[in-house]
Amino acid sequence: MGEPALPFSDRTRLRRYHWLGKYDRDTINSIIDAGIICQVGYVFNGEPYVTPTSHWRIDDYVYWHGSSASRMLKTQQTGIPVCFTVTHLDGIVFARAAMNHNVQFRSVMAFGNAELVEEDKKREALAAFTDKLAPGLWDYARPPSEQEWLATKVIRMRLEDVSAKINDVFAGDEEEDLASDLWSGAVPLYVGQGEIIPDPRLAPGIEMPDFARLFRYTRK
Amino acid sequence: MGEPALPFSDRTRLRRYHWLGKYDRDTINSIIDAGIICQVGYVFNGEPYVTPTSHWRIDDYVYWHGSSASRMLKTQQTGIPVCFTVTHLDGIVFARAAMNHNVQFRSVMAFGNAELVEEDKKREALAAFTDKLAPGLWDYARPPSEQEWLATKVIRMRLEDVSAKINDVFAGDEEEDLASDLWSGAVPLYVGQGEIIPDPRLAPGIEMPDFARLFRYTRK
Repeated sequence: MGEPALPFSDRTRLRRYHWLGKYDRDTINSIIDAGIICQVGYVFNGEPYVTPTSHWRIDDYVYWHGSSASRMLKTQQTGIPVCFTVTHLDGIVFARAAMNHNVQFRSVMAFGNAELVEEDKKREALAAFTDKLAPGLWDYARPPSEQEWLATKVIRMRLEDVSAKINDVFAGDEEEDLASDLWSGAVPLYVGQGEIIPDPRLAPGIEMPDFARLFRYTRK
Repeated sequence: MGEPALPFSDRTRLRRYHWLGKYDRDTINSIIDAGIICQVGYVFNGEPYVTPTSHWRIDDYVYWHGSSASRMLKTQQTGIPVCFTVTHLDGIVFARAAMNHNVQFRSVMAFGNAELVEEDKKREALAAFTDKLAPGLWDYARPPSEQEWLATKVIRMRLEDVSAKINDVFAGDEEEDLASDLWSGAVPLYVGQGEIIPDPRLAPGIEMPDFARLFRYTRK
């Protein structure tokens, strides 16, 4: 059984293709957690900005981080409205009808207000981020210096006005197209992982630790 | 030799990590063309919206499309400012220092004003879109009916205020970290393509056409 559905507003209630809408929290969380990169939209001087950045989730919050000098984060930390999206491209659908070609995808869209994360909560958040990338990574790496600590800012947003959209079907062709001799099908796409490349500057004899050796990226 | 660099403004000149900035047009075009999904940011009632959608490029314009009844497109066709981004995740970098973990990526960010594309230019644009997905696809599929034609809207934006950002290096660790016995390296990620799945509703004996049989998704 999934957790209870999150509330959603007029913004996240899907207007078009509403049959693609999925609102249960497990679905939403799994789409967010399967992504390493999100897109954060915000308004600055009345104009739209969209920034790709790494994200992670702890309970009902999504997090991202960056340089303390970043214009995006300086703007967001004042609590402005942001739009957070994660999208996975799962395939291409070739239809029988020219207007029915489509993509298979999973996406989440969330609206909220940005919030600066500080002190102990910032440390917990950054540890959760690196351990999401690879369990054990936070404890393995050299801890941040005071200067590094100050140079990085963490922002979060509460997941409350959020929806997911999933398209995993074949072409929405009409009955008369289905009866034609035109071909239709789907090309599945996935994120594959190549062989790990050790940093060429590694001192001789340093073995790959388990967190790297066991790393597997899966989007499911 | 590449085409001349595009002009860029205070918005697209990178403030942080400026050494990642790439501004030549060939680089920008190749990042855009390698993507099937973009993210379009816009402002509606003063709030930010980010919508993932398929995109394509013809010369100096990027295009996207959708339902004529879509709120996003109805809003955008009035010529409002939009922010167009495409991002490819190419890898994860595990650093020696906890604050230096990073991702390898290629991204493009472009600012401009949305514009409705109509009549013959709309037909050319949709033909270019489907032929980008797979050459020959537009001519293969059943042409749009009048009703289908009216139900779809095409929007474009001129690429003039645009920049690209590429990170393809190992960890930016300090000299003293490089000299430590900590491991560092990169996990390459790529978009892989599974075996094509014919629509289970296909009438018997319909063979896969060349545009599908020869389809190869590459991000390079």
